[in-house]
Amino acid sequence: MIDFQELLARRRSVRQYEDRPVAPDIIHELLRECTLAPSAGNTQPWRFVVVQNREWLRRLSDHSKACLLARIEAHPNHFALRYEAYLRDPDFNVFYDAPCLILIACPKALKTGPLDVALAAAYFMLGAAARGLGSCWIGLGACIEAPDIRAELGLTPGDQVVAPLILGYPREVPATPERNAPQILKFIN
Amino acid sequence: MIDFQELLARRRSVRQYEDRPVAPDIIHELLRECTLAPSAGNTQPWRFVVVQNREWLRRLSDHSKACLLARIEAHPNHFALRYEAYLRDPDFNVFYDAPCLILIACPKALKTGPLDVALAAAYFMLGAAARGLGSCWIGLGACIEAPDIRAELGLTPGDQVVAPLILGYPREVPATPERNAPQILKFIN
Repeated sequence: MIDFQELLARRRSVRQYEDRPVAPDIIHELLRECTLAPSAGNTQPWRFVVVQNREWLRRLSDHSKACLLARIEAHPNHFALRYEAYLRDPDFNVFYDAPCLILIACPKALKTGPLDVALAAAYFMLGAAARGLGSCWIGLGACIEAPDIRAELGLTPGDQVVAPLILGYPREVPATPERNAPQILKFIN
Repeated sequence: MIDFQELLARRRSVRQYEDRPVAPDIIHELLRECTLAPSAGNTQPWRFVVVQNREWLRRLSDHSKACLLARIEAHPNHFALRYEAYLRDPDFNVFYDAPCLILIACPKALKTGPLDVALAAAYFMLGAAARGLGSCWIGLGACIEAPDIRAELGLTPGDQVVAPLILGYPREVPATPERNAPQILKFIN
């Protein structure tokens, strides 16, 4: 049992993992905890996909890279442009060889859905840290467009993947990086 | 010191508060904790406005209501339509007479900003619960458009308010509502 503030310090974005799967029971616990997050109008719009299979993770990484490269070509100022060298490197795995990936999706039509998913993702990452697990939100992993892959993952055309989260036992927990002091625009008393 | 899972259960969306301000030191602590949230590319795009003044809270509530009613007129299928009766009630305070409001904003130009703000907001709400405080994300409070009000709050035209969060000592903590079981679209082992 650890203090909440200690937990916040312990939660790091982990990109180096042991080659060791996470027990499905723990994953189910984490997903149940995600559902305790608040959501706009209590819509609970989150939907989960869990991938623990190495070949599948590789396939998703390769697809994400191709998908992002296509977006960069179509929109030259796409945010992924600065990762182009990584995306073109066949050895780069966007999921950092983590043993497990959780995708949190929500209906595209729901404007508040991505915010609700982010709240659930925060619960997930803190819940992982509370259990000695590492996690990291992989923004580059959200580009999943191939209809066959989407169908195999159970994603309908109306779903959007918001939060790709890798999970596993950390091989190395990075030190807490410096954070800027909170920028308080105004404090009205 | 409480267990993380106990903390998740304790965090409720609180809409009834004691008439008692929150010490500025506690607010500053909560905002520092928010900055420990992860953000895309470690951009830390969150900006905070704190309002603890009753007249200001009333003014912001009245402005939000007028702002949302104007949006409903312009876009008849706006999400706020179902709250129209409340918005037209002069006695309804969108901030539920909470003693304190924190707005978390980010640059409009930053596509990942709202997700980062939501992560910080999750830290805020859990940090509040860890201190026996109540909080609630007030979606109706994000409609702040009047240039004079925005300027007095320190918001530039390039800022968007993503997370309006009320804070205070709960008069009543609602029971934990039922949550749907996590909807797992696929679990690939």
